Amino acid sequence: MRKFLSALSLVALFPAIGTVPSQAATDKFVTPNEVVDAAPESDWQRIAPNDLMVMDLAPDTRGKPRRVVIQLMPAPFSQGWVGNIRKLVAAHWFDGIAVVRVQDNYVVQWGDPDGETPGKAKALPAGLAGPTEKDYVAQLDERLRSTFVQRSAKEAGRTAALPTNPDSYLPNGLSLFDRGWPLAADGRVGWPVHCYGMVGVGRNLSPDTGTGAELYTVIGQAPRQLDRNIALVGRIIAGMEHMSSLPRGTGPLGFYETPAERTRIVSVRMGNDVADLAAYEYLSTESASFAAYVDKRANRKDSFYIQPAGGVDICNAPVPIRVVTP
Amino acid sequence: MRKFLSALSLVALFPAIGTVPSQAATDKFVTPNEVVDAAPESDWQRIAPNDLMVMDLAPDTRGKPRRVVIQLMPAPFSQGWVGNIRKLVAAHWFDGIAVVRVQDNYVVQWGDPDGETPGKAKALPAGLAGPTEKDYVAQLDERLRSTFVQRSAKEAGRTAALPTNPDSYLPNGLSLFDRGWPLAADGRVGWPVHCYGMVGVGRNLSPDTGTGAELYTVIGQAPRQLDRNIALVGRIIAGMEHMSSLPRGTGPLGFYETPAERTRIVSVRMGNDVADLAAYEYLSTESASFAAYVDKRANRKDSFYIQPAGGVDICNAPVPIRVVTP
Repeated sequence: MRKFLSALSLVALFPAIGTVPSQAATDKFVTPNEVVDAAPESDWQRIAPNDLMVMDLAPDTRGKPRRVVIQLMPAPFSQGWVGNIRKLVAAHWFDGIAVVRVQDNYVVQWGDPDGETPGKAKALPAGLAGPTEKDYVAQLDERLRSTFVQRSAKEAGRTAALPTNPDSYLPNGLSLFDRGWPLAADGRVGWPVHCYGMVGVGRNLSPDTGTGAELYTVIGQAPRQLDRNIALVGRIIAGMEHMSSLPRGTGPLGFYETPAERTRIVSVRMGNDVADLAAYEYLSTESASFAAYVDKRANRKDSFYIQPAGGVDICNAPVPIRVVTP
Repeated sequence: MRKFLSALSLVALFPAIGTVPSQAATDKFVTPNEVVDAAPESDWQRIAPNDLMVMDLAPDTRGKPRRVVIQLMPAPFSQGWVGNIRKLVAAHWFDGIAVVRVQDNYVVQWGDPDGETPGKAKALPAGLAGPTEKDYVAQLDERLRSTFVQRSAKEAGRTAALPTNPDSYLPNGLSLFDRGWPLAADGRVGWPVHCYGMVGVGRNLSPDTGTGAELYTVIGQAPRQLDRNIALVGRIIAGMEHMSSLPRGTGPLGFYETPAERTRIVSVRMGNDVADLAAYEYLSTESASFAAYVDKRANRKDSFYIQPAGGVDICNAPVPIRVVTP
């Protein structure tokens, strides 16, 4: 096995985005994952089980189980849709639906295969909210506003020596991490961004914004043009490979052409209702460890990397997630 | 099927990057693919068959053929490695090797499974070149230098109304398209960038730069930190789904743990040696059609899109490729 690969592995495990480096913490380590491995316990945040959605797919062709764990988006973002999804899970509505579409370098989508067929569509539970287009963004709370101001000041002072993150999609804004999530903000409002593994709400043409009964996850280059056009409700934190490696659909837009091609969703439950669920933690994006790890990711220089980039895209920066075994 | 999907499909087919809009051409159309569909024949460039590498994988579990077509990188980039790859294909060296690694949101890699085993490694043909680290970048030729200068001037004049493409990885440079390829440049030198589907050369620790006998393709978010650290030699223009949907390896770095998990490469031939190969064309990146399509991609506004992004990342911008049937 080539050493080349071990150097590359960090990229896949823990990419990160430019922010101001924590030199003291950074200089002790060579690689981003050395920084993560050295993070103190206090820098890891436990994800509440009732914020996790556990989706069990039908076993694969060799009979192996396929479990996907989704972390739901916290306030102030997308809470109307997140509330609907909690109702749908409580009603076991997702049980028995299927993955209906896999489009390469784009999305895997799951929902009711008969959702568009009058008379055959699976009935939705009563009392679902009807969020509107304005809910795609959220007013910045004090914490996020101050984070944005701090980041803006840093960006204003950026130099080639510091990792920076100009963002192709934000001519007048900033992408940044806050409380464990990749966000964008323009100083007044903020919104989550479409990175690999993020989960969003399928909808029809505007002004329809979707209910949350049809969902998709990103399996390719971040389709950031969807930001502020679709509601993001969470991200896959475990089992992503069960979605991204599904056979691509051969119909228009990657839809499967026959029911036999679909992957059945056996059940979806909240984490607190799953007895054997592991505990998950993320590295605090407000910690010095995260800042140092991000600096290393933006400035790779080791036995493999010759030329540091000097910056990194927010979507090449999944927040480190770990499984905690009791 | 939700209309939502038809709107999204364009994204997967033809994303694009910010550039100066060709208003006359743009305003006639609503969507990027309408612009592409309306491009005159003169805007399409035929790809020479001897610049195509045709890789036939073993048939899938249902006996279906899996053909992958790779377009090799033109001068001035990576020609030492590209020359080696042509020699390896001519010697049928790739025949019988295998896909040995699939790491989610990162790379699919193929090569000699015994490549690192003394005495078992498949012998390489004589006369392979030994490119050095300096060959990861190329001096800008007059055309590329002038393109960079033009783009720099445009970027300097960017406004929120125009699509722009600040690049997270280029605090002092620009990403741009030239002669059909996504590139980055700093004004003195240029280099190809690691987008989805690009093909690169596996190597050991620096100063080793690899021979071209071990290759990989990107199957996730663009790992741009590899730019100027690995040689890119081409891109997959057909059959990408056969690579990206392969089962992820469960060993370290996504390596397959057993030989049985590997996908065998039956043969690799240059396009001019494949009798039944279709003809492929790309949309000229120097055409008004491409500029207009890019403008639409950076400013989506239609029955689905509510909020235009105002810009787009170079790696969300695969150059439109079409198959021409006689």
